[in-house]
Amino acid sequence: FCSQAPIRATLFPGDGIGPEIAESVKQVFREAEVPIEWEEHYVSKEIDPRTQSFLTWESLESVRQNGVGLKGPMATPIGKGHRSLNLTLRKELNLYANVRPCYSLPGYKTRYDNVDLITIRENTEGEYSGLEHQVVRGVVESLKIITRQASLRVAEYAFHYAKTHGRERVSAIHKANIMQKTDGLFLKCCREVAEKYPEITYEEVVIDNCCMMLVKNPALFDVLVMPNLYGDIISDLCAGLVGGLGLTPSCNIGEGGIALAEAVHGSAPDIAGKDLANPTALLLSAVTMLRHLKLNDKADRIHDAIINTIAEGKYRTADLGGTSTTTEFTKAICDHL
Amino acid sequence: FCSQAPIRATLFPGDGIGPEIAESVKQVFREAEVPIEWEEHYVSKEIDPRTQSFLTWESLESVRQNGVGLKGPMATPIGKGHRSLNLTLRKELNLYANVRPCYSLPGYKTRYDNVDLITIRENTEGEYSGLEHQVVRGVVESLKIITRQASLRVAEYAFHYAKTHGRERVSAIHKANIMQKTDGLFLKCCREVAEKYPEITYEEVVIDNCCMMLVKNPALFDVLVMPNLYGDIISDLCAGLVGGLGLTPSCNIGEGGIALAEAVHGSAPDIAGKDLANPTALLLSAVTMLRHLKLNDKADRIHDAIINTIAEGKYRTADLGGTSTTTEFTKAICDHL
Ligand SMILES: CC(C)[C@H](C(=O)O)[C@@H](O)C(=O)O
Ligand SMILES: CC(C)[C@H](C(=O)O)[C@@H](O)C(=O)O
Repeated sequence: FCSQAPIRATLFPGDGIGPEIAESVKQVFREAEVPIEWEEHYVSKEIDPRTQSFLTWESLESVRQNGVGLKGPMATPIGKGHRSLNLTLRKELNLYANVRPCYSLPGYKTRYDNVDLITIRENTEGEYSGLEHQVVRGVVESLKIITRQASLRVAEYAFHYAKTHGRERVSAIHKANIMQKTDGLFLKCCREVAEKYPEITYEEVVIDNCCMMLVKNPALFDVLVMPNLYGDIISDLCAGLVGGLGLTPSCNIGEGGIALAEAVHGSAPDIAGKDLANPTALLLSAVTMLRHLKLNDKADRIHDAIINTIAEGKYRTADLGGTSTTTEFTKAICDHL
Repeated sequence: FCSQAPIRATLFPGDGIGPEIAESVKQVFREAEVPIEWEEHYVSKEIDPRTQSFLTWESLESVRQNGVGLKGPMATPIGKGHRSLNLTLRKELNLYANVRPCYSLPGYKTRYDNVDLITIRENTEGEYSGLEHQVVRGVVESLKIITRQASLRVAEYAFHYAKTHGRERVSAIHKANIMQKTDGLFLKCCREVAEKYPEITYEEVVIDNCCMMLVKNPALFDVLVMPNLYGDIISDLCAGLVGGLGLTPSCNIGEGGIALAEAVHGSAPDIAGKDLANPTALLLSAVTMLRHLKLNDKADRIHDAIINTIAEGKYRTADLGGTSTTTEFTKAICDHL
C-alpha cells in the first residue's frame, strides 16, 4: 500500500481526555501503517455564527470533503445561545444513523457472556426536535417528530447492515401501543423495508419489554433499530452489559456515505491530562471507520491487538482495574500488532 | 381482629391467567385470616359509555368507595373507539404515582444479588398524553406534556415514601439536556420538594446513563422518581434484574389516598386455565395493598411465606424452572403461613 495515496480523514480530538486518547489512536494507526492522513480540528473557543456553535464551519467542511472522521468526547461549554456540539454535528452533517456494536470483550468479565448486539439509532428527529413550549404557566410540552423519510432511511440502513454483516434478525423497538401515530409510522416504515429483505427475520418489541429482556437474556436480540431517544437509552443499556461506554465503539452514518466514528463516553475532565484515560472506545470506533473505508485487514489487525491486550490483562487502565497509563496501554497494543 | 369489621377492597381478577392468580390471593388471604372482603369486578364484554372502555362505571366506583383494590392483568380487547383498560384506570382514578419495588428474591438466582430499588413513576401525563397529529403526509408528532402540578405531586410522594420507608436517596431520572423545558420542569419540581427533605440525598441522573449504571451496578440507586415513559422503561428494566414482571409487585397511588395494587405482567392467554401461572407478582402486589392498609403483621407474614416458598425451591411454577401447578404453589405458601 505504500504507493497508495493516503486517505484524508478528519480528527476531532475533543476535550478533556480527548487529546490523549486521540494520540493513542494516531500511534496505533502509525504502528499498523494505516494509510490515513489526519486533518485535525479542535473545538473553537468562540461561537462560529455559521454553525451557531463552537464547532467551526471549516471543521464541518472537512468532514464533508473527506467523507470520514473520528471524534473524541466534546463537552458543550455552558452558556446560552448556542447548540450542543454533538447535536450540531448530527444535524449539520445529517448523520441519520448511529450504529453501536456491543459485544463482550474476551477476558473482560461482566455479568454477561457472549453479548453480540448492534443498536441502530435514528439520529436526527424524534424527541430531539428541540421543539418545546410553555403552554400556560406550569404546563410545558415537547414535540416528538417522526417522519416517513427518516424512518425509512434508518430502517433501510439497519436491514442493509444486517444483510451485509451476516446478521439474521432485526428488531424494531417502539412504544406504538401508546404513541400510535409517531411510533406507529416508524413501525410501518420498518415493515415496508422488511418486506424487501425476506432473508432477515423481522420482529417488533415494545421498549419496556425490550429492556427487561435485554437484562435477562441479551442473546434474544441481534440488530435493534429504533427512534432517537429509545436508541439513546438502549445503546447505553447494552454498553452497560459489556462494561460501559469506555469499551464500546460508535459510528454515525450520514447522507452521501459520510461516516463519523465517535467515542460516546464523556470527556472525564477529572482525569484529563494525567495519562490515565482508557482509549479503547475511541480505538474501536476508529476500527469501525477503517471498516467503512474497506480497510478490513488493518481493521482486523488493530481490533485483534486491542482485544488481545485487554484479554491478556497485563496492561489495563484504572477503569478496568489495572494500573497502566494510557501510554503503556497504547504501547502494549502496538506491541501486539 | 375477629371483632373488627372487615375492610372492603375491590378485586379485578382480569383476563387470561388473571382469575387463577386472583384465586391464589384469595386463598392465601383466607389462610392468613386477613380481614378483607373482596368486591369482585370483571372486565365487561361491552363498552360502558360513561368510561368509554370495557371497564364499567360501577367497577371504578367500587375502587373510589373502597379506596383500595387489587388488579390482575387485563388485555385490552382489539378494536377501535375505546381506551386501554390500564390507561382508563389511571386516568379515571387519577392514579398519579406507580410504585414498583424491585428486590432480589432470596433463593431465586439471577445475575444480580441484593438488588433493592424502588421506582416511582409519574403515571398520568408525559408521553402518555394521547395527543398526536399528522402534520403533513409522512410527518407526525406526539406531544409530551409535563405539568408543575403532577410533577410536584409525584416528587412529594417519592420523598415522603423515602422518608417513611427508611430510604436514603432519591434519584430523579430525566433527559433535560435534550428536553430542557419538559424534563427541566420535572427536575425543578423535584428540587423544590428535595429542599423540604434535607435528610434525603437528592441527585439527578440522565436516563441513558441511569440505564447503563443500573445494569452495571444497581446498588448505586435507592428510590428513583421519573416522568411516565422513563418510569415505564426503567421499572421493567429493574424487574428484569431480579427475574421479571412475574416476580415484582406494583401499586398505583391516587388522589385522596386510593391505592390500586396491580400485577403488571401480561395475561398470558397461552397458559390461561391450565393451572400453570405464577401468582407471585399479584401476591406481592396484594402485600403492598396490606401495607397501605397498615395491616403490617399480615403483610409481613404473607410476604415471608411467599419468599420462603420460593427460596425453599421445592414448589415452583414452570416460569421459575419448577413443575408445580398454581394450586400446589399456593398450597405451599399457605403451609408456610
Ligand atoms: C450528550 C447527549 C446530548 C447525547 C444524546 O442524548 O444523544 C449522548 O447521550 C449520546 O448518546 O450521544
Ligand atoms: C400496557 C401498557 C399501556 C403499560 C404502559 O405502557 O404503561 C404497561 O407497559 C405498564 O407498564 O403498565
